[in-house]
Amino acid sequence: MPESYDKLAAYTRKVATLGSVSALSSWDQETYMPRKAAEARSEQSALLAGMLHERITSTELGDLISAAEADKEVMGDDELAASVREFRRDYDKATKIPGELVADLARTGSRAQEAWKDARERSDFDGFAPWLEKVIGLSRRKAECLGIPESAGNDGELYDAMLDDYEPATSAKDIEAVFTPLAKELADLLQELRGGKHPGASILDTHVPADRQHKFGLFIIEKLGFDMEAGRLDVTTHPFCSGFGPGDTRLTTRYRDERFTDALYGTMHECGHGLYEQGLPKHERFGEPLADSVSLGIHESQSRLWENLVGRSLAFWEWALPHAKEMLGGDLRGATPETMFKAVNTAEPSFIRVEADEATYNAHVFVRFEIERAVFSGDLKVRDIPGVWNEKYKQYLGITPPDHRRGCLQDVHWSFGLLGYFPTYTLGNLYACQLWDKINEDIPTLDNQMRKGEFGELLAWLTDNIHQHGRRYPAPELAERATGKKLSAEPLLRHLKGRLKPVYGV
Amino acid sequence: MPESYDKLAAYTRKVATLGSVSALSSWDQETYMPRKAAEARSEQSALLAGMLHERITSTELGDLISAAEADKEVMGDDELAASVREFRRDYDKATKIPGELVADLARTGSRAQEAWKDARERSDFDGFAPWLEKVIGLSRRKAECLGIPESAGNDGELYDAMLDDYEPATSAKDIEAVFTPLAKELADLLQELRGGKHPGASILDTHVPADRQHKFGLFIIEKLGFDMEAGRLDVTTHPFCSGFGPGDTRLTTRYRDERFTDALYGTMHECGHGLYEQGLPKHERFGEPLADSVSLGIHESQSRLWENLVGRSLAFWEWALPHAKEMLGGDLRGATPETMFKAVNTAEPSFIRVEADEATYNAHVFVRFEIERAVFSGDLKVRDIPGVWNEKYKQYLGITPPDHRRGCLQDVHWSFGLLGYFPTYTLGNLYACQLWDKINEDIPTLDNQMRKGEFGELLAWLTDNIHQHGRRYPAPELAERATGKKLSAEPLLRHLKGRLKPVYGV
Repeated sequence: MPESYDKLAAYTRKVATLGSVSALSSWDQETYMPRKAAEARSEQSALLAGMLHERITSTELGDLISAAEADKEVMGDDELAASVREFRRDYDKATKIPGELVADLARTGSRAQEAWKDARERSDFDGFAPWLEKVIGLSRRKAECLGIPESAGNDGELYDAMLDDYEPATSAKDIEAVFTPLAKELADLLQELRGGKHPGASILDTHVPADRQHKFGLFIIEKLGFDMEAGRLDVTTHPFCSGFGPGDTRLTTRYRDERFTDALYGTMHECGHGLYEQGLPKHERFGEPLADSVSLGIHESQSRLWENLVGRSLAFWEWALPHAKEMLGGDLRGATPETMFKAVNTAEPSFIRVEADEATYNAHVFVRFEIERAVFSGDLKVRDIPGVWNEKYKQYLGITPPDHRRGCLQDVHWSFGLLGYFPTYTLGNLYACQLWDKINEDIPTLDNQMRKGEFGELLAWLTDNIHQHGRRYPAPELAERATGKKLSAEPLLRHLKGRLKPVYGV
Repeated sequence: MPESYDKLAAYTRKVATLGSVSALSSWDQETYMPRKAAEARSEQSALLAGMLHERITSTELGDLISAAEADKEVMGDDELAASVREFRRDYDKATKIPGELVADLARTGSRAQEAWKDARERSDFDGFAPWLEKVIGLSRRKAECLGIPESAGNDGELYDAMLDDYEPATSAKDIEAVFTPLAKELADLLQELRGGKHPGASILDTHVPADRQHKFGLFIIEKLGFDMEAGRLDVTTHPFCSGFGPGDTRLTTRYRDERFTDALYGTMHECGHGLYEQGLPKHERFGEPLADSVSLGIHESQSRLWENLVGRSLAFWEWALPHAKEMLGGDLRGATPETMFKAVNTAEPSFIRVEADEATYNAHVFVRFEIERAVFSGDLKVRDIPGVWNEKYKQYLGITPPDHRRGCLQDVHWSFGLLGYFPTYTLGNLYACQLWDKINEDIPTLDNQMRKGEFGELLAWLTDNIHQHGRRYPAPELAERATGKKLSAEPLLRHLKGRLKPVYGV
């Protein structure tokens, strides 16, 4: 390895190690921290955040990157050159935002989040609006500091600078080009399904104690290929996956006594994220972009693929059901793979995004994407959000939220400046289906393998084609290299139609 | 608060906060970390250790301390002056040892520990001797850098510099003055007990599943006063207590299906440490010596007090036994408080320190103290340790270890330079009994309170007289202020005789 690159990687490995401490501290806060430690923990988080910010914006790091850029041996190596390109990207972004704006966003975001909690409770949008205006104002200042990313081309917009934090190399116009036909056709599909009849999901209404669900969840994720010697599964209020570093990827889930499939799919979803984290070459390259996930959309494609394309398939239930019967008890005796398959595949418009099914979920995303983009450009005023929100729910889902709590106040994201984040959820669904097509082409026996609980070849494909590359290629290029195709709405639409129309008998 | 002190405390609060991250990382390593994260975790530990070392030896800190020392308002306040005295003490100690020696000790200690594991396995002292010589050589260099502490007086010795790390203000001669009569009289007591007969402990040979033991352990420590909203109890191979910071004190224990009292007393022992940590004024003064424990001997006095003086008393079992019967199940039906009391109070010479009972434990400590002191002064060569070890076991306990594994190779301490640590175990027993005398004088109804499971007044006494003072007074002064007496062997001897002679019927 050229010396200039070695020095750079040694520096960033230390930064990543410090980051892994911060990840541990956050994980502990959600899992095992005693209640009364909260105040001390926020001091700890602020200290670590400050130390990390100092290190990712230091002139020392800037000099190390410049030295690597000036090193012909580094830049002559495709892989290292890609790594340095990403190092430069992160550094330039981090140093473009003044420290005082970072602090202001953190402080305001934290207070706005409290205001949001309170406003949601009371379904009071007016109480939240001034905070949202502040947060959007600060976010816009941040976007101005960052500038419109080059990848957005000549017709880029300020909102693209926000998107770039979560889904680099994908502009609002790129997203619009896929979302527009998707929205139209999904609305048509929902309309068509309304003419049919779902056979019902009462089979899922069985009581299963949390400890049995936990044992079953562990059994499933081990079978999917999650390495339990390099990870864990714990319980939190909001499930998440955190990849700390080499050999340490932690998943969380939550259990209710009813509808064990809620926890199961939550666990499989986080497991999908976890398999990506475990597949990144962290042992060799921790702290380098080559061992880092490429975008939220691609990350989400992994979680959705395991949750929906594997977990909600008939083949999966042919294998899993006997184990579920044995390990879960309850009233599953009468269930068949077919009744399970039908029960877990529905398309029913609802108000709450996080409770939405695979098909209607995307409509929730369209609403948020269109609104945040319009607010960011100034075309929409914050005070007009509730009206537009309700109109769009009518348009895409055919329903009108009864109040703001179940409407535009339901998500925490905007309160702390997560603008440009929502579209990545649907990008995940799109990428997942696009990958799934190619995987089934490359592994024609996959369905049979799943029927026997064999997921090794599938995981190996994902590792080879996605995980192991880290950030070597921008997300759209990575997906195109893996599938030979550009992002489009078609695979997701075909998948949903193929799965849901027979279930609804249309 | 004077500004100079405020600035100093703000600096050290940040250092302590970083230290709490390091404590969390260590705790996680012992409790929940996946096996394959071990290598990354050691990188993390080394990084944090380096960052902490940098901060506790910085000229910035030195200047802040000097400024506080020069501030008449600070030095005119007894409490703040005591705090600054301890800040100075820590800083001078930390800066006296060259960074390269710190690193050398860490590296050599880590390798010597591996060599020790291997040597113990094979009972091969000669394989370990060269490593022990290296570690002792480096420790002696460290002691030379630190110098003999002033508190040791004119006849101090180099070993006192080691003691000063764990038990400041107590010299080897101080310890010898108490240990010598204690050793003599304990040997006489053991001799006398040998003439009697222990009624047996077969009542403890009952099978109790770990989850029941855990529930019972939690019940007990909550009753003792451990705040579970500001702490936890988890399971590890080697039980410990870690006080992370304000509102966060974590205990660990371990369960075997047999002899539930092993886990119970382990839990009560760590709980004693935990109550001390929870009683320190961390919310107000985290990072200041006033919120820090004063010495290992005093810390151990708290754990021993709750484990032995409370937990092995008849009064405790009068209260606890009905709960034990209800919560533990097993074959406890026939047990009475008296049979439990007798079963948990024994005095049987044995080879392994960590398995020794309350009375014989101290003999294990005498052997180690005398040997490490002699090795440190050069009076004893490393190669001669095994012979002297066995002689001393014969002298104090009347038994001869069958091999080095059960002899001089049993403890990990020396392998990574913990010299001067062992005496604090017996100092803990001594301080505990001295405190116990005064507590019973001040709370004449304590025995009756314990019979009802009431420990609030006892805990309040300990908090008022010990915990809340942190490092305001050196340990011997703190104990004398609390009890009106100087350290002596008498209270421990009286306690052991009073408890064991009736049990053995002599």
